[in-house]
Amino acid sequence: MPDEEALLRQIAERSADMAGRHPRTVAVGPGDDCAILRAGDPAHPLLLALSVDQLIEGRHFTPDTPPDLIARKAIARAVSDLAAVAARPAWSLAAGVLPSEDPRASELCDRLAHWGEHFGVPVVGGDLATIPRTPNTSPAPMVLSITVAGEIDPAAGERPILRAGALPGDALYVTDRIGNSLHSRRHLSFTPRTVEALELRRSLGDRLHAMIDVSDGVGRDAARIARASTLAVEINAHQLPLHPDASGRAPNAEDDAQRAVADGEDYELLFAATGDVPTHVANTPITRIGRFFPGEPGACDLLLADGRRLDVRAAGWSHR
Amino acid sequence: MPDEEALLRQIAERSADMAGRHPRTVAVGPGDDCAILRAGDPAHPLLLALSVDQLIEGRHFTPDTPPDLIARKAIARAVSDLAAVAARPAWSLAAGVLPSEDPRASELCDRLAHWGEHFGVPVVGGDLATIPRTPNTSPAPMVLSITVAGEIDPAAGERPILRAGALPGDALYVTDRIGNSLHSRRHLSFTPRTVEALELRRSLGDRLHAMIDVSDGVGRDAARIARASTLAVEINAHQLPLHPDASGRAPNAEDDAQRAVADGEDYELLFAATGDVPTHVANTPITRIGRFFPGEPGACDLLLADGRRLDVRAAGWSHR
Repeated sequence: MPDEEALLRQIAERSADMAGRHPRTVAVGPGDDCAILRAGDPAHPLLLALSVDQLIEGRHFTPDTPPDLIARKAIARAVSDLAAVAARPAWSLAAGVLPSEDPRASELCDRLAHWGEHFGVPVVGGDLATIPRTPNTSPAPMVLSITVAGEIDPAAGERPILRAGALPGDALYVTDRIGNSLHSRRHLSFTPRTVEALELRRSLGDRLHAMIDVSDGVGRDAARIARASTLAVEINAHQLPLHPDASGRAPNAEDDAQRAVADGEDYELLFAATGDVPTHVANTPITRIGRFFPGEPGACDLLLADGRRLDVRAAGWSHR
Repeated sequence: MPDEEALLRQIAERSADMAGRHPRTVAVGPGDDCAILRAGDPAHPLLLALSVDQLIEGRHFTPDTPPDLIARKAIARAVSDLAAVAARPAWSLAAGVLPSEDPRASELCDRLAHWGEHFGVPVVGGDLATIPRTPNTSPAPMVLSITVAGEIDPAAGERPILRAGALPGDALYVTDRIGNSLHSRRHLSFTPRTVEALELRRSLGDRLHAMIDVSDGVGRDAARIARASTLAVEINAHQLPLHPDASGRAPNAEDDAQRAVADGEDYELLFAATGDVPTHVANTPITRIGRFFPGEPGACDLLLADGRRLDVRAAGWSHR
């Protein structure tokens, strides 16, 4: 939905000087997967990574989704934003709007608390509101809003990995496999790549340049790294590691790849690095799928075997 | 709305042992105006006060409210939760759901950023989603969810002021005046009592025992301090400082008082203290309006001149 995309970019642009205006507290303002805040002793600040994310009935889950899976996705999606900047999960707050007398309310609260603990972000606060159903209208959709915080400790050599920072010649990598997340229902049951993100930062050190989690599709999200890094990126269709159920959906493998980069909601890590990259981190495969180069900032092409280039920077639709 | 009230209490009860289970990070879990988290060097932690609050069209503001006032109320209400625990405002995150192509979206984002800066909580991150209007239904109401953080520095002698902590014999005080907030539109234009809260903690020291901000009405909110402190509280009708436009609404002053304790959305501070309390803090009047005593936990009566006692612990309706 271009209006959202445009508005979110507008917010980020207006806030571009926020770190400059609030140097004591704001290290990175809006526009990345998380904002990065300074907390604690100014001489030895801890960095907090903060993100807020909304889950909307009918858009991110169907009305018949069990409350357990709604809660799991709401928390996991937010924690995936922490993984994208390589922050250690710390805590969360949850807010929800439900139709009045929604029978799911109590179970939903229980399961949010459960998955918060499970994914390392205990739900320390919340708000819940109900909207009465008016006659002759359908009930308003359930909306959950999850704020998560993660920690990054510079004293322990940790640093946030942002979207900006990819360099010309960097390769583009992805964790595990992608594609067909919605139909396979993996979008409801994935595990955020927290361990992998921390291990990548530890093992690659300064060679890990930029990172994002795949929410809107490998095409759109690789383009976001490229735009923030003022580079172009290209993805090799034949290198894409597709889930088995994302193969054979189309007459040929390249069409499968084209669908997979647009599917979105994979919640894998997509990162830019230079030098040797291990084939696995924390038992999760890592695949090189493309490269960054000087070019139109944010351009993202999918390269096919016959040499054709498809512009996939806006592939699929935004699941934000 | 009792279903919300019950659910929120259920969440708080389930989370009662959260500080015990997460001693490194959670100082105070759900159930107060803010959660209190530890951040930074474990030897010298900074405390973060965190709260999330939702603002819902048709409930907290009418559809014809200008975006500037919607944004102001959303931020101010959240900052008022920080004042309630005497935290210094630090930053915020904003999430919103609007109908597709809502012409207010861009202005709303601008004004949220403006009021965030104005009230000391720069908006460091956000999410925005639009919901398409389906045929034959009214558009879903706008929902804004604001997460705010404030700082409390134990190294500077600061501590959070909670709902729990009132002692038998404590007096109950309120800042400025109350009543008629909705019709006067003060609920859209109030200034959170940040300065007053910090000054009260500074000047009263250990004699400031418990505090809350008045969102749902003096009756309900005084009862919340009483319940958390396992005491009863009584409020003297003739002592209540009513706004001029909250007087003369009823045939007699006591009926005015009875309406005012139920009106809610005053966003004044209500606190329990012992010993001498100044008549003003930061030029804002302070009025003694009642007292705490051993009794049914959470009982809250309004005392009338003829000796009658009205149970006002559930007066009015919940504006949460």
